[in-house]
Amino acid sequence: MTAHVIGIDGGGTSCRAALTGRDGVVSGTGKSGAANILTDMNGGVRHIIEAAQRACDDAGLRGELSSMDVLLGLAGANMDASVEALRGRLPFRRCEIESDALIAVHGALGEADGVVAIIGTGAVFAAKQGSSVRTIGGWGFVVGDQGSGAALGQELMRRTLLAHDGVGPASDVTGRLFSEFGGEPQKVVAYAHGAPPGAFARYAPMVFEYAQRNDPVATAIIVEAAGQIDAFIDAMVGTELQRLCLLGGLAGPYEPWLADKHRARIVPAQGDALDGAAQLARQRFLMTGDVRV
Amino acid sequence: MTAHVIGIDGGGTSCRAALTGRDGVVSGTGKSGAANILTDMNGGVRHIIEAAQRACDDAGLRGELSSMDVLLGLAGANMDASVEALRGRLPFRRCEIESDALIAVHGALGEADGVVAIIGTGAVFAAKQGSSVRTIGGWGFVVGDQGSGAALGQELMRRTLLAHDGVGPASDVTGRLFSEFGGEPQKVVAYAHGAPPGAFARYAPMVFEYAQRNDPVATAIIVEAAGQIDAFIDAMVGTELQRLCLLGGLAGPYEPWLADKHRARIVPAQGDALDGAAQLARQRFLMTGDVRV
Repeated sequence: MTAHVIGIDGGGTSCRAALTGRDGVVSGTGKSGAANILTDMNGGVRHIIEAAQRACDDAGLRGELSSMDVLLGLAGANMDASVEALRGRLPFRRCEIESDALIAVHGALGEADGVVAIIGTGAVFAAKQGSSVRTIGGWGFVVGDQGSGAALGQELMRRTLLAHDGVGPASDVTGRLFSEFGGEPQKVVAYAHGAPPGAFARYAPMVFEYAQRNDPVATAIIVEAAGQIDAFIDAMVGTELQRLCLLGGLAGPYEPWLADKHRARIVPAQGDALDGAAQLARQRFLMTGDVRV
Repeated sequence: MTAHVIGIDGGGTSCRAALTGRDGVVSGTGKSGAANILTDMNGGVRHIIEAAQRACDDAGLRGELSSMDVLLGLAGANMDASVEALRGRLPFRRCEIESDALIAVHGALGEADGVVAIIGTGAVFAAKQGSSVRTIGGWGFVVGDQGSGAALGQELMRRTLLAHDGVGPASDVTGRLFSEFGGEPQKVVAYAHGAPPGAFARYAPMVFEYAQRNDPVATAIIVEAAGQIDAFIDAMVGTELQRLCLLGGLAGPYEPWLADKHRARIVPAQGDALDGAAQLARQRFLMTGDVRV
């Protein structure tokens, strides 16, 4: 079984695994539930093991997970000590745990160098040069994640309350959000307090929708946020011409709002985060041996 | 005992009561612990009763609290249904519960009309015309409270992380904050997540301190925030010349940063929130009778 390794994309809604060999061909895949180890460690452990087992079964591979080498990409893996607790509970022979951003970057760029902007509920930026990947952003929407879906939704709520108070301009989009809360500012506040990032991010598509129709408040929010995304990309790209991949649920909506110099760099992603995990697993466990021996 | 009423300022750190009569002279005061009914209803009830009893004792007044009329100003009184639960547990004959902003406004302006900006951990604005008081802002720092101490501290953390990532400029104040967290961005993020407003607001004085020394990042934060405070005051003042009182822990630091037109309106507060509660108690329970009969 040493000729096979497993890459896993452990996400907040599902966990996917891919079995691959020296040639990089994926011979089996498996899917299971969420790997949210911060909020549900037991469920996360179960789903990671389940997805790995299903990938082996899919490939018709018989054998123990305890003889497998696994590279696991995990949301928030750079943020918490619970990663170490997770490692102790996984049955694999070797297990390397990396951030979800890292596997996404390797999936998107493949062997090439470049910059990846991952903009969904959060926002994180990575620059890949050879096997080295540097990330910025991704600090969460309380003190970071400028331009993220959560930040857009939160800003829409802020501006809706400002419009209600007569401090800022009202527009169709503030009226639309306000009506979703029955026209009661207290309900907006109650929704926002203690809400997870996703509860704000669900209003991000509404901001883009109204900005496309030239709603002045929605446009102002998107222009400001796109400027922040541009600033993060500027900090990564430097002055050289580099390829740029946009990933995440808001990649498409943001594209027309970014600076021309950045839009000119954009290339489609070669693969997704699961591809990246499988590719990294192969590099880490199968290729280095080839080189060294 | 009908010739006496009690005004209470129920705050997040202490609860103060003042006993007054028809003439408006305060004949006894009492102090007790916090009246944080959202987080500690039992403690809040106990401290409100204790403060009222101590004010009666201080005045040498014997008798039952059940024969007293009380006006209670309470932080967050406009935000939560637990106010009704509180009312049912208080022993007073009549009890009117108002927001802390309302009693602060009456204390600051007395009989006069004007605008009050209360800027501390939060930020709320009130316009008083006769007995009518209209408030704006005060929606909490997640979707409001622009310019508040919590917003200033949060913005300093944001800009410190942007400087660390090379996306925004670094300066003395971002260096200072970063060093307080051991130069580890993860520690800034961990501190911020789930932190109460006060945990951000404790860094507001640092922003003012560095802005006074012309630190560019601190100055940018204060200039932007003062512009937001100005916008709230604009929305309240309209075009008429009206007196303006600045209250709260950041009133003094903000004053030199506000627009000249607003600085020209500023008058000192006539009294504090407890004065306002006592005055309102007198108006509600003792004066209306005089007028109507």
